Amino acid sequence: MPRRKKTVKYFPFKRSVLKSKTFYTQGQLKIIPLGGLEEVGRNSMIFEYDKDIIIVDMGLQFPEEDMPGIDYIIPNISYLKGKENNIKAVIITHGHYDHIGAIPHIMSKIGNPPLYTGCLTAALIQKRQEEFKNLAKLNIQIVDPRKKIRLSNNFQIEFFRVNHNIPDSFGVVIYTPLGSIVHTGDFKFDHNPVNDEPADLNHLAQIGAREVLALLSDSTDAEHKGHQISESKVGEELEIIFSHAPGRIIIGTFASLISRIQQIISITEKTGRFLLVEGRSMNTNIDLARRLGYLKIKPKTIIERKFLKKIPSDRLVILCTGAQGERSAALMRIANDEHRDLKIQKNDTVIFSSSVIPGNERTIQNLKDTFVRQGAKIIHWQMMDIHAGGHAKQEDLKLMIRLIKPKYFIPIEANRYMLEIHATLAKSVGIPEGNIFVADNGQIIEFKQSKKVPPEILGKLTDKKAPANYVMVDGLGVGDTDNIVLRDRRVMAQDGMLVAIVIIESKTGELIGSPDIISRGFVYMKGHKELIERIRKKIKKITKDKNPRSRAFDNYIKDKIRNSIGDFLFTKTRKRPMILPVIIKV
Amino acid sequence: MPRRKKTVKYFPFKRSVLKSKTFYTQGQLKIIPLGGLEEVGRNSMIFEYDKDIIIVDMGLQFPEEDMPGIDYIIPNISYLKGKENNIKAVIITHGHYDHIGAIPHIMSKIGNPPLYTGCLTAALIQKRQEEFKNLAKLNIQIVDPRKKIRLSNNFQIEFFRVNHNIPDSFGVVIYTPLGSIVHTGDFKFDHNPVNDEPADLNHLAQIGAREVLALLSDSTDAEHKGHQISESKVGEELEIIFSHAPGRIIIGTFASLISRIQQIISITEKTGRFLLVEGRSMNTNIDLARRLGYLKIKPKTIIERKFLKKIPSDRLVILCTGAQGERSAALMRIANDEHRDLKIQKNDTVIFSSSVIPGNERTIQNLKDTFVRQGAKIIHWQMMDIHAGGHAKQEDLKLMIRLIKPKYFIPIEANRYMLEIHATLAKSVGIPEGNIFVADNGQIIEFKQSKKVPPEILGKLTDKKAPANYVMVDGLGVGDTDNIVLRDRRVMAQDGMLVAIVIIESKTGELIGSPDIISRGFVYMKGHKELIERIRKKIKKITKDKNPRSRAFDNYIKDKIRNSIGDFLFTKTRKRPMILPVIIKV
Repeated sequence: MPRRKKTVKYFPFKRSVLKSKTFYTQGQLKIIPLGGLEEVGRNSMIFEYDKDIIIVDMGLQFPEEDMPGIDYIIPNISYLKGKENNIKAVIITHGHYDHIGAIPHIMSKIGNPPLYTGCLTAALIQKRQEEFKNLAKLNIQIVDPRKKIRLSNNFQIEFFRVNHNIPDSFGVVIYTPLGSIVHTGDFKFDHNPVNDEPADLNHLAQIGAREVLALLSDSTDAEHKGHQISESKVGEELEIIFSHAPGRIIIGTFASLISRIQQIISITEKTGRFLLVEGRSMNTNIDLARRLGYLKIKPKTIIERKFLKKIPSDRLVILCTGAQGERSAALMRIANDEHRDLKIQKNDTVIFSSSVIPGNERTIQNLKDTFVRQGAKIIHWQMMDIHAGGHAKQEDLKLMIRLIKPKYFIPIEANRYMLEIHATLAKSVGIPEGNIFVADNGQIIEFKQSKKVPPEILGKLTDKKAPANYVMVDGLGVGDTDNIVLRDRRVMAQDGMLVAIVIIESKTGELIGSPDIISRGFVYMKGHKELIERIRKKIKKITKDKNPRSRAFDNYIKDKIRNSIGDFLFTKTRKRPMILPVIIKV
Repeated sequence: MPRRKKTVKYFPFKRSVLKSKTFYTQGQLKIIPLGGLEEVGRNSMIFEYDKDIIIVDMGLQFPEEDMPGIDYIIPNISYLKGKENNIKAVIITHGHYDHIGAIPHIMSKIGNPPLYTGCLTAALIQKRQEEFKNLAKLNIQIVDPRKKIRLSNNFQIEFFRVNHNIPDSFGVVIYTPLGSIVHTGDFKFDHNPVNDEPADLNHLAQIGAREVLALLSDSTDAEHKGHQISESKVGEELEIIFSHAPGRIIIGTFASLISRIQQIISITEKTGRFLLVEGRSMNTNIDLARRLGYLKIKPKTIIERKFLKKIPSDRLVILCTGAQGERSAALMRIANDEHRDLKIQKNDTVIFSSSVIPGNERTIQNLKDTFVRQGAKIIHWQMMDIHAGGHAKQEDLKLMIRLIKPKYFIPIEANRYMLEIHATLAKSVGIPEGNIFVADNGQIIEFKQSKKVPPEILGKLTDKKAPANYVMVDGLGVGDTDNIVLRDRRVMAQDGMLVAIVIIESKTGELIGSPDIISRGFVYMKGHKELIERIRKKIKKITKDKNPRSRAFDNYIKDKIRNSIGDFLFTKTRKRPMILPVIIKV
């Protein structure tokens, strides 16, 4: 019997096959980063081999300041149009909103492919689904790290455990016919994580030993030197604060920082205190994580609000949402004395156990002022190590590259500036400059086999671009808010608007009555009666001597009102309100 | 001849008089901090003894995010109404906008009292006056530090030199019948300042030796440990960068940081480069400071733009405004390729030589991305000491308190949170807690003589408040933008607006034609024709069966349109545009 020849059916191609002089594949692997704003691949990445597609993450991003009224931005999936049936899997690395938040908006549009993720992440995804109506049921597969999953002829995947500030955070190895691609997800190395296993360095080293084609690695904290601090270090500092605080402790953090919440609970128990949980999302997440075993809480630790008065101040911890100064969150309500049962007392210690998201600095400053004015003491993350970032710093990033030893390196999940810093780091640990691809969102990275003998797999950062312009979620509208709508909002926010209603006798062209002027957000009208009178006079003059039956009449009058009233108001007020002329012919 | 008795005519009262058992004055000294936003006394402070008033500083503050369209905020001077003739002087400590910016708006309203300040500051004030029309000429007196100026029976003043990041920065001693008050202005101690004299520590010690009643001290940087770095340290770092940069250097900073600009010029000269100055305010300030001798520039250092192409890249420095990411500033225009003559080249080094003003983080991040994408290298102040703050840190603040040795301490020029930190510092160097006053803007601090023997001067933080609500400058409008206007702007920024015009036959109450619907900033109308149709139908239904002659008709229809269309649109879009119903009866 003749020996069977190895063919493409064997998957993944063994290295010996790929390197054999005779083997040749025309297959191409494409990698496309997607994301809101400038963070490349932060919210989603597409991997495509031949016709097979897998997607890693499906998150949302909060809008910039110049996008008033927009709720958030989701990845642009136009590239997937017509390819819905080719999507073999959606892989979610962990349960934060910038990685799961777009699922309700996108999954049904791409035919609800199977979704692979960790257990806690699955629960958080399901919880978010409940906020939307009429969504098809998701097909979620809970994965086991270190177990390979075969998705199609072209793709196999394998999860590996990393650390982040939420349990069940994974990176993923994507095995393709051209080699394996490692996507770190959001990660840090924490040798002493809280209620979670340490990142599996051994597993990473094994993956690295098997020749990795490309590493896609988290660049969020690439600018900072050294190692990210361990979550357990945060615990040590918090314990000191909890032991010495003379009265109540009010501590604000993100509801999604499950590991931090575990610490706060454990230290509350250790220091003989009781915990009141405030804020809807904080309560929901604690319930959910507790049910799934991701939070360990003694039965009597958490108290109900009605027992608040029975607990002495120095035995109380209040855990809140709102450390970013969110308007309606618990922390803000307590500060502003809008909370039914909680008021700041003289000996309260308020802890901000989270970093400040850029853009929130002033709001948080005001929040601190409000607490201090009422006699509370403030402790924030820059004063003590009471917040550990969730992302690898420079030494951790180098370790990741050294463990994986990829041929190609693609920094992801950050702004261009940060990606370039990460690229420089990669160069410093030996990745050749030509093998580092700093891509933009939508920019297609291609891998294919070279024609030379022995063949080699070559990558290229192409000039081709998949659509990557913003898809804005604006109330129930998804992607249909255009630039004109945004521009109008910006104009009205700055200078307000003014409606001028002109009623005209359609036969004679004569003005009937006096023009109606309505303005909002421009100037305080009652104080500007003379201004209004002058606008009316100007309009009267404009409408004179024109033939109302001419076709150009309306447009002429409208343009004239817009321009001449616009210029007049600017001279008088230095404001340029949006002017809406309305002509009614009777 | 009988010995003449010492009376109140002798001024300032000698200590021996104040402490004599028989002397008694009913005179009261009031101190009132004013400022925009939460920064107490940042922009202005009022000092009042009997009827005499002096004002220190008259600046502006930039608005918060929830004040769309507002240009800036100026101090509320309602307290001075009717007291214009009592104002003996306006003292300006230095030339930054948060200390001089409100002069054009306020001086004419308070009768243009004499203004005492340093030479450079005077020039900057005059420059700003030119931007306004029809302002009365200011009466500016240039002061000499260490020379006392008698303002009235109750006030003498004396300037003392401090450092800041603009030359000619002074603090002021105010001698009153009850004792002397020291106001530091914005300050740091810089033993090696650039083109400026070091703070006069000896003078401060002498002032302190003469028993100071109260110290009002700059709290801007009270949160940070140690000493503020010297401006000359910045020079050392910049020189290293300038010497090693392979191509052009593009450096952004504030036009008002005259000391920094001097450094950049000196190092440009030292490294054999030429300087191109970009940005209107940068050019004006350099001209002005150079003319007054506050900038030393060699004749050939600054080149004109037309010679740009003749200078090799590695001999060129471009000094720009816009390091805060201001939209129309030079740095932004270069980044966005909107500059006529300047485009980013591969070997450019872009230096951000300023700290980041809270709220600008994201914009600056995007600006960096844009530069990096075009191949430039970025250096910012957190990477190297290329920016020195202008404000004293904790050790400097303690030194100030120890030199002045005041009886009372009043932290000023910062948010409440920072003032409390400064208060704690003061306590740590021996000021009794009861003698530290952390005031709010408008809160009146009073000093008077006690009735006990021997008499003592006692201070009190009272509950009395001078009006301190925001005075907003909104185009040409000053203080007449009310909360309704701002609220309308916020609503329209979030959700846009919709005008519904209903024409009604006044006799029958019948609707004529179909209601006109105009919307802006709400949803993209062309994509929502069905929605518009349904709005029309709803309006038709509302107007039916109502008697148009009843007085309540209009209001009823308007309310009904607002509510029912509002609810309908919210259900359909999750947006709540401002709805403006217009009823026209013909």
